[in-house]
Amino acid sequence: MTAFANKSAMKFSDVVQRLGISLEHSSLGFNPDLDPSLESVMAVDEAKPGTISYIDGAKFAAQVATTAASALILPKNHALQTAASDRGIAWLETAEPRLLFAQAIALFYQPFQPAPEIHPTAVIHPTATIGESVYIGAHVVIQAGVAVGNHACIHPNVVIYPDVQIGDRTVLHANCTIHERAQIGADCVIHSGTVVGAEGFGFVPTPQGWYKMQQSGYVVLEDGVEVGCNAAIDRPAVGETRIGKQTKLDNMVHIGHGCHIGFGCAFAAQVGLAGGVEVGNRVILAGQVGVANEATLGDGAIASSKTGVHGNVAAGEIVSGYPCVDHKTYLKSSAIYSRLPEMYQTLKKLQKRIEELEANA
Amino acid sequence: MTAFANKSAMKFSDVVQRLGISLEHSSLGFNPDLDPSLESVMAVDEAKPGTISYIDGAKFAAQVATTAASALILPKNHALQTAASDRGIAWLETAEPRLLFAQAIALFYQPFQPAPEIHPTAVIHPTATIGESVYIGAHVVIQAGVAVGNHACIHPNVVIYPDVQIGDRTVLHANCTIHERAQIGADCVIHSGTVVGAEGFGFVPTPQGWYKMQQSGYVVLEDGVEVGCNAAIDRPAVGETRIGKQTKLDNMVHIGHGCHIGFGCAFAAQVGLAGGVEVGNRVILAGQVGVANEATLGDGAIASSKTGVHGNVAAGEIVSGYPCVDHKTYLKSSAIYSRLPEMYQTLKKLQKRIEELEANA
Amino acid sequence: MTAFANKSAMKFSDVVQRLGISLEHSSLGFNPDLDPSLESVMAVDEAKPGTISYIDGAKFAAQVATTAASALILPKNHALQTAASDRGIAWLETAEPRLLFAQAIALFYQPFQPAPEIHPTAVIHPTATIGESVYIGAHVVIQAGVAVGNHACIHPNVVIYPDVQIGDRTVLHANCTIHERAQIGADCVIHSGTVVGAEGFGFVPTPQGWYKMQQSGYVVLEDGVEVGCNAAIDRPAVGETRIGKQTKLDNMVHIGHGCHIGFGCAFAAQVGLAGGVEVGNRVILAGQVGVANEATLGDGAIASSKTGVHGNVAAGEIVSGYPCVDHKTYLKSSAIYSRLPEMYQTLKKLQKRIEELEANA
Repeated sequence: MTAFANKSAMKFSDVVQRLGISLEHSSLGFNPDLDPSLESVMAVDEAKPGTISYIDGAKFAAQVATTAASALILPKNHALQTAASDRGIAWLETAEPRLLFAQAIALFYQPFQPAPEIHPTAVIHPTATIGESVYIGAHVVIQAGVAVGNHACIHPNVVIYPDVQIGDRTVLHANCTIHERAQIGADCVIHSGTVVGAEGFGFVPTPQGWYKMQQSGYVVLEDGVEVGCNAAIDRPAVGETRIGKQTKLDNMVHIGHGCHIGFGCAFAAQVGLAGGVEVGNRVILAGQVGVANEATLGDGAIASSKTGVHGNVAAGEIVSGYPCVDHKTYLKSSAIYSRLPEMYQTLKKLQKRIEELEANA
Repeated sequence: MTAFANKSAMKFSDVVQRLGISLEHSSLGFNPDLDPSLESVMAVDEAKPGTISYIDGAKFAAQVATTAASALILPKNHALQTAASDRGIAWLETAEPRLLFAQAIALFYQPFQPAPEIHPTAVIHPTATIGESVYIGAHVVIQAGVAVGNHACIHPNVVIYPDVQIGDRTVLHANCTIHERAQIGADCVIHSGTVVGAEGFGFVPTPQGWYKMQQSGYVVLEDGVEVGCNAAIDRPAVGETRIGKQTKLDNMVHIGHGCHIGFGCAFAAQVGLAGGVEVGNRVILAGQVGVANEATLGDGAIASSKTGVHGNVAAGEIVSGYPCVDHKTYLKSSAIYSRLPEMYQTLKKLQKRIEELEANA
Repeated sequence: MTAFANKSAMKFSDVVQRLGISLEHSSLGFNPDLDPSLESVMAVDEAKPGTISYIDGAKFAAQVATTAASALILPKNHALQTAASDRGIAWLETAEPRLLFAQAIALFYQPFQPAPEIHPTAVIHPTATIGESVYIGAHVVIQAGVAVGNHACIHPNVVIYPDVQIGDRTVLHANCTIHERAQIGADCVIHSGTVVGAEGFGFVPTPQGWYKMQQSGYVVLEDGVEVGCNAAIDRPAVGETRIGKQTKLDNMVHIGHGCHIGFGCAFAAQVGLAGGVEVGNRVILAGQVGVANEATLGDGAIASSKTGVHGNVAAGEIVSGYPCVDHKTYLKSSAIYSRLPEMYQTLKKLQKRIEELEANA
């Protein structure tokens, strides 16, 4: 654990202060002597002495009675707080335990960040421009006309095709590929193996077979976009494929050519968007959702896992199923699904009984 | 935009001629003076003066009234043509607007094509044979016994295992991996991050655990095959996995060991075929389709997005759903799906009313 | 075929002996003179003279009459054995034809195994420790604090982030990426393009947008784990993501942060597990299965292809469908699905007939 050991330990009171919690909203308000030294952050069911953890939701509440954590982030729940105090566990109170937990991790954990360097094995075209304090790892290839911003971090074996722009502080993880003309904003993270800006899947059927439509467009990732591992975002025949600010895509997400995605969206793993999809802002797509060509999703729309979206989903709508319907309808219909054989039998019996009634009438 | 700037501008009359359209089927037949200079191709709703675009289908027809394009590719529709002429937009007429649009892009767009070179950082085994006018980018690795055809283009950081054959003019994009014994034909394109010819998933259950079945076979890609980004085509235990001529696979398609796929097929993104699937010619699989072990699809079969195929799909059949059924049946059944709760309630009520009728009979 | 030509030919009697079959359970017990020379193993429908193949299941039984194989692995079926003998085909008998076939392949096929070497273009941090008889291919990058075991095989263009452990005899195929702190056991195989140990998808919603939760944990792959191509196994915010001994994952499998998977499982291609999923031992997930956050699957549970798992699946249970139900229920309900329109019409008609009966009552 040489390269990115956790930062050094700190007192619970320091943690409380750094997280912006007042002493009155922590066990220190009642017992200023209970101020354990903390070394790291752990899950409540795996926590050891000298660590801080958190509790959020009924599922984990019972863990207050058994956890070995020395400190806990708790919701505004007097019973939980008392139970923690009774066991000598320091605690702090917040309306957002999961958010505070995330902030606590950031206090203790130092992510791996290589020092600025241009490795001698990197192959950089003389027409490329490289910003200040950049890390370019071993065997990176940067083609003609590329512009890399300041403090960018390009991990080993990344390949960047011509005329790409990489914004300030953006991180490209190992073995990913950025294709010609892509424009990647500032503070983006592209995870390992991902491909940005490759040719969209454009083939026109003819009697002689597929005619390849050249993909003359490009991909734009606005500031703060993150893309998971082994994903792919394709460029279109003309114009651009665009991912809005702060939108987050998980592993193996496929974004087809000419999609336009708003800001603040989150797409879980293995989501796939066909071509020309229009997605508003703050849209959530759960795992393995598929969206058909030219479909649209309005601001704040949500699709649950494995949903198949066709046509238009209105702003704020929650959809499920394949083909998708309103989520509440889906819940009702899918609950009936397993009773279909029973319904079928009932129907047959009723039919017979009606025939008997009709015969007797 | 240094490395692959668009080609230079040309007159509309030149475009008409190069696309093989007679003057009578364009606005030039009526107004030879309307001959704008064109610089590129754009989508009709984003077009600027000095560009050519196209209109296909009712959805876009209204754009004739608003587009800023200087020229349009139109269907055989007199009203649209008149509307274009009235706005001073040059046009040409075709039965295939999308195909002509693709051909127009090819007139203006020069894809990135590196000049022949064998980069000094490439590591090429002395027993490999390399054709003429080949590009082999930085950090490419080519193992023993590989044969690379003429005019092939192998982008940076590609790895080729032993005894692979790469045909003439085939392009391997960055960071892809070609495994031992794969035979890739001429004029193929393998996009970034894709893996061809890795071991199939072959494990035989035994009381002592999984017994690994060695995958001694190989993959064949016939001429003109294209494979999208981060896809995988596995080799089988014995024999071959084969993809027929001109078949096109999109991003993240998985082809299991021992599949045999005909010519001219198109599989959209995230399609997965398990082992031993037999696919005929010109089969279309939409996004996220799954095909089970040993299933078969006849010539011209189509599966709509997210379909789960088991068993046999006849030639020309269109299937949908999971498990898949005839597409028309699927449309009817899925339309009923959201009425299941209503049907269930109706059934319960009818049952009660029949009981009352029976009691009174 | 220079680098890994098949091993030399051997007599059928040698094959029988090496597979541990007694002479009485083979055609040699009846005709010791029928001892063909065998060069390789092939599928029964593609077999040529001089090869051995196998027959398992009714689908292939008829091939005994037509195969050109010189030898067959047969089930305990007297009719098949007689039919083989009548055609002069040598055979051996086993209760496990597919397992014997796998063992026969291993007799004839020598997988590609590079000789130990540390390629001069590999970039290895001075604090990394490398075991004995290791192969490290061209352009591999190994960062600080990495430990590589004996006889490990790291193919070209692999990138290993700091503080990773790689066990003895483990194989990392080309272009894969192992992230910081991952612990990969002995005898593992990671296929090309796969990413192990990247950041989990952790973003906490706030009024100001997504707050990134640092992923301070790590991934553990126990001994004998295999992971297919272009897969991704994420590390969690705290603690570990763990894959148990001898578990096998196919191509493009996604394992979210904090999942714990037991031993001897097999997940087919394109399976996706969201975060915090708990999977027991010997669980089988077929292709494109999705498992929701915090779901659990007990020992020996099975989910058929495309199943969507939420909540808890008991040990030994077989589930199907989306949302998943007991497999038998699924089979019944899905069989009814295509009759939904008929049921709907029947229901409407019955309603009308009941109204008539009621009017007449």
